[in-house]
Amino acid sequence: MDRLRIALVGCGNVGRAFVRMLEGRRDLIRGTYGADPVITSVVTGHGGVVREDGIDAAALRAEDLDPAIDALSVIDAGAYDVLVELTPTNIRSGQPATDHIRHALSRGRHVVTANKGPVAWFYRELRDLAAEKGVAFLHESAVLSGAPVFNLSRETLIGCRVTAVRGIVNTTTNFVLSQMRDGASLDEALEEGRRQGFVEADPSLDLDGWDAAAKLCVLMNVLMDARITPPDIRRTGIRGVTAEDLAAARRSGGQVRLVCRGRFDEDGTPVGVVEPVVVEPGDVAHITEGTMSFVTLTTDLMGDISIIEHAHEPEIDHPAYGVFCDVLRILRSYR
Amino acid sequence: MDRLRIALVGCGNVGRAFVRMLEGRRDLIRGTYGADPVITSVVTGHGGVVREDGIDAAALRAEDLDPAIDALSVIDAGAYDVLVELTPTNIRSGQPATDHIRHALSRGRHVVTANKGPVAWFYRELRDLAAEKGVAFLHESAVLSGAPVFNLSRETLIGCRVTAVRGIVNTTTNFVLSQMRDGASLDEALEEGRRQGFVEADPSLDLDGWDAAAKLCVLMNVLMDARITPPDIRRTGIRGVTAEDLAAARRSGGQVRLVCRGRFDEDGTPVGVVEPVVVEPGDVAHITEGTMSFVTLTTDLMGDISIIEHAHEPEIDHPAYGVFCDVLRILRSYR
Repeated sequence: MDRLRIALVGCGNVGRAFVRMLEGRRDLIRGTYGADPVITSVVTGHGGVVREDGIDAAALRAEDLDPAIDALSVIDAGAYDVLVELTPTNIRSGQPATDHIRHALSRGRHVVTANKGPVAWFYRELRDLAAEKGVAFLHESAVLSGAPVFNLSRETLIGCRVTAVRGIVNTTTNFVLSQMRDGASLDEALEEGRRQGFVEADPSLDLDGWDAAAKLCVLMNVLMDARITPPDIRRTGIRGVTAEDLAAARRSGGQVRLVCRGRFDEDGTPVGVVEPVVVEPGDVAHITEGTMSFVTLTTDLMGDISIIEHAHEPEIDHPAYGVFCDVLRILRSYR
Repeated sequence: MDRLRIALVGCGNVGRAFVRMLEGRRDLIRGTYGADPVITSVVTGHGGVVREDGIDAAALRAEDLDPAIDALSVIDAGAYDVLVELTPTNIRSGQPATDHIRHALSRGRHVVTANKGPVAWFYRELRDLAAEKGVAFLHESAVLSGAPVFNLSRETLIGCRVTAVRGIVNTTTNFVLSQMRDGASLDEALEEGRRQGFVEADPSLDLDGWDAAAKLCVLMNVLMDARITPPDIRRTGIRGVTAEDLAAARRSGGQVRLVCRGRFDEDGTPVGVVEPVVVEPGDVAHITEGTMSFVTLTTDLMGDISIIEHAHEPEIDHPAYGVFCDVLRILRSYR
């Protein structure tokens, strides 16, 4: 292989950052892997463009897009080696990303996605389909942006079994709780998050714990081989957390955080909980301020291991890095 | 390959724990990799034993050892695929482990070691020799026991450059500082650490910062591609830390920890510092109590990422796991 043809489906902030990362390191990649990743299709909600000799996706304008080209037409009939799936996807259904991924895997194409929905809802099916077709299904950015959680477990904890997970994985709620503790109202905290560019227009999925619940499913399905979907998670959001709760926790040295926990009960049933809890000093959760996040893996052979992403400010490049890294992993497998 | 023949050189606590881990998972390994790791040679300071059909190393007694068999005779002339090098090694010279590793790599044999000395002093030579011979040189347990630091960087931070490292990597000094802060004298703290089985009879290399300095060199050489050896590290141990220093730090909310930092200065010269510092709340170092340890990697694409090993008590199985995992990594490369 001298080219790795990429179909980029979904090209918002993360997609554009991914393209910049790829373009900026083209020589390095060619030198290391002896092959060029080339974006040969781009599809957005407004149409698509296909160009066998490569697309300068960073310079793409609205008028370059052919509205007759949609995602499935490219995925089902286009010429590409890897689908990079970054569409806005409903985490309550995992769509449309799941269908895109199914179709690409069925054709024997590798898939890299930053979407958590497909992994929260349909992991086992997609994993098995990828294995059957002998291709990769990678999703490092689905939790903790691009910080290595899934690759950590798969590549570096070989022979280790993950028996439980715990973490803070939703940036919006963690930021809001930090701001409210420091005196802001919920609305002021959300406004500040919007100003910094990472809080959604409708933050319900974050505030109600849906995003965290979906990510907890991803962690449990992938790392613990659980069969669990978002409705199974015992989920409490942060709307009920008051300024007084935050102040009381702080007076006793603690912090209120939206913590996820996953384990198996005595019968082997997976149990996932997302809820605001008071965490004490000495806990990694206690120092997880603002836009930081972390996951702790409990393992049979190595005890507890934590990985912290210190996003000092919201970083659009971090999820893009996870996608970039997954694409390089596929390139590396061809060497 | 249906067998991976292991020459185990050095068989103390870590070696025995590694053997138990391997034996307890033989069926799992065979099922996953289609191959059996078999220990065909064991060499200790009192002699060795070679048996082509495999050695039950866990059951080895002193009278099984032939005093005429020494490490280099097995390494230079024995039949094996992987050298597992676990000899007691002087971190001021990196010997005898470095010679053992050199000889094995020169013969085109894979090497797994838990020794930091060879990597602190001779990393580039050994890395290049392994590459020339097309074999693996793995040393995950050299820093942070078996928690993935080197494999994390190599396998999961593809395309990322590590520009600085920081961490707490010496368990003895961290435990001693935690105990002294809680009221123990230095001698009492050391005695308690000996009782728990992880403080050396002569703890000078720990207290004077030598162990931390060697580990910092390992981190910098491997992750940052620095050329640095232990004498280059600006090293201050913890003997000068008084009960009053610890109390004063605590009164202001801080903690005294022996922290390692590695970076490049403006000229590209690697700068490594090991010294006791007062760390503030919110810092990962602040929650690193007792036998915990951590490393933070500063990267170009993913910002800061920390990995924490939460050894709640001294764990001999953790360094053994690092060795076990490295051996599985080699097995996996044959699939």
